[in-house]
Amino acid sequence: MRILYMAEPSSASEWREEFSKQAPDIEFREWPDIGDPSEVRYIIAWEPIPDLMQRFPNLKALYSAGAGVDQFDLSQLPSHVSMVRLIETSMADIMAEYVVFGVLTLHRDIFDYQIRQRERCWMPFPVIPACERRVGVMGAGRLGLAALERLRPFGFQLSAWNRSPKDVPGGRCYVGGQQLHEFLGQCDVLVNLLPLTPETQGILNAANLSLLPHGAGLVNVARGAHVVEEDLLRSLNSGRIGGAVLDVFNQEPPSPDHPFWSHPRVLITPHIASNVQVKGAVDLIMRNLYRERRGLPLLNVVDRSKGY
Amino acid sequence: MRILYMAEPSSASEWREEFSKQAPDIEFREWPDIGDPSEVRYIIAWEPIPDLMQRFPNLKALYSAGAGVDQFDLSQLPSHVSMVRLIETSMADIMAEYVVFGVLTLHRDIFDYQIRQRERCWMPFPVIPACERRVGVMGAGRLGLAALERLRPFGFQLSAWNRSPKDVPGGRCYVGGQQLHEFLGQCDVLVNLLPLTPETQGILNAANLSLLPHGAGLVNVARGAHVVEEDLLRSLNSGRIGGAVLDVFNQEPPSPDHPFWSHPRVLITPHIASNVQVKGAVDLIMRNLYRERRGLPLLNVVDRSKGY
Repeated sequence: MRILYMAEPSSASEWREEFSKQAPDIEFREWPDIGDPSEVRYIIAWEPIPDLMQRFPNLKALYSAGAGVDQFDLSQLPSHVSMVRLIETSMADIMAEYVVFGVLTLHRDIFDYQIRQRERCWMPFPVIPACERRVGVMGAGRLGLAALERLRPFGFQLSAWNRSPKDVPGGRCYVGGQQLHEFLGQCDVLVNLLPLTPETQGILNAANLSLLPHGAGLVNVARGAHVVEEDLLRSLNSGRIGGAVLDVFNQEPPSPDHPFWSHPRVLITPHIASNVQVKGAVDLIMRNLYRERRGLPLLNVVDRSKGY
Repeated sequence: MRILYMAEPSSASEWREEFSKQAPDIEFREWPDIGDPSEVRYIIAWEPIPDLMQRFPNLKALYSAGAGVDQFDLSQLPSHVSMVRLIETSMADIMAEYVVFGVLTLHRDIFDYQIRQRERCWMPFPVIPACERRVGVMGAGRLGLAALERLRPFGFQLSAWNRSPKDVPGGRCYVGGQQLHEFLGQCDVLVNLLPLTPETQGILNAANLSLLPHGAGLVNVARGAHVVEEDLLRSLNSGRIGGAVLDVFNQEPPSPDHPFWSHPRVLITPHIASNVQVKGAVDLIMRNLYRERRGLPLLNVVDRSKGY
């Protein structure tokens, strides 16, 4: 049983160690030390691999070393090879932390206070109770639901927007394109946790941003390509958007002259909102190997008709 | 029944409206329109009132329009006049929001990312799981326990330090001066929610700050006088303290040349972490009037031997 690791080199030793603990019988190899390619059954990768099937003819599953799979061309993957996402509980917990941080930053006017701090100006604003603040999460998948669960004890008015109906504890779930306008119209703080697909690319454009209540806040922890950055910039400058906590960008890192770097109402973090947690990811791979042996359907397999 | 309001004038109309809703029979008066002072039974005040008893001989209770009562000289208050704190659930909830914001800011390295953002530098740090982060709260009173409760779902290693033993769900309670050193030695993030008394004044001094793990974070939401500001500044500059989220200061506002204003590892907010919520405060006063009529002990009365 051979697993080939083709993701972030600096994390390879952590993966190797975790596999040696959980499954010493598995042969863990790190790119480019692949050995006989026909023996590679599983690959963990962050980026698409050219000529994947020609090079690894006996591949059974491709594991994405991130929450999303938008970087892979699923049409090039034969149907007998599973594309699996390594989302698990600890990754969702870490994402939820960041989301709560972003929502509280916007809810408690921290951008305004930081602007005032730079001006050495002491100016309290009235505190808006959480029960009067409407927080909407786009994407009610594993990560979105975990974020909503962690936001719930604060007493915000919660809602979600999702492609298909989902049970959102403590809030309404708006569904599909027809309810997008209505959803955005009631988001004082908007959190983006959508998968990136042709349908969601550029969804945070001028038209949709203009539907948000005046001064709304944005937390983007999904993909940079969800946002039309010049539209967001214009919305920030007009005051339509009051602040943006951004972990992902059209280009990463953004170019040095990107206006977000110096914008007083933008917080930039370098794609750290969450990432695959090695221990949980190896747990998941082990559970899938077990399921495969027993002929059970694998966990976290991407639905290619949806693209996530 | 007359209540005299001597706190923040800009909030007076909100208090008046809430009393007129909950208790239209109560005569609400706003300083300086006091009428016959001998008819004043209750006062809501933020600052000490000179010659209190000479001016209001029939006073029964003095309500502090804030969580603390350190501004009042309790020795001047006859024992038959109750000093009452207006801490209630909504105030504790708002405080807990700010504490979670501050802890997550420090936990997720936001000061570092903001410094890098100013340098247009994209540099991810590894995420430390919450279960490896030790968060300690000084003061396990109403506000401290509410903050701990809201921090708990994130999975931090929680602890508290308190004058007397308290049951801290999900964490250990360190008690009294003898366990202060041990408590501080295990606080990656320290949250101060102590009452200000002669014993706690200046408690965050060089000696105590030096007991914290290197690079620890501080959230101060209690009183500025808990902190020896020059000691904190030195600790920030040496790296002993990695960041400070500060809502209270020795002098408010801090003077324009105060070094905190421009410090890259200090966030200044203008004493907004929490404040008395009028609806909940009026609820509490009404409950106390009811209890007084029935000869029951009042709620939230300050223990003068402890000073809070």
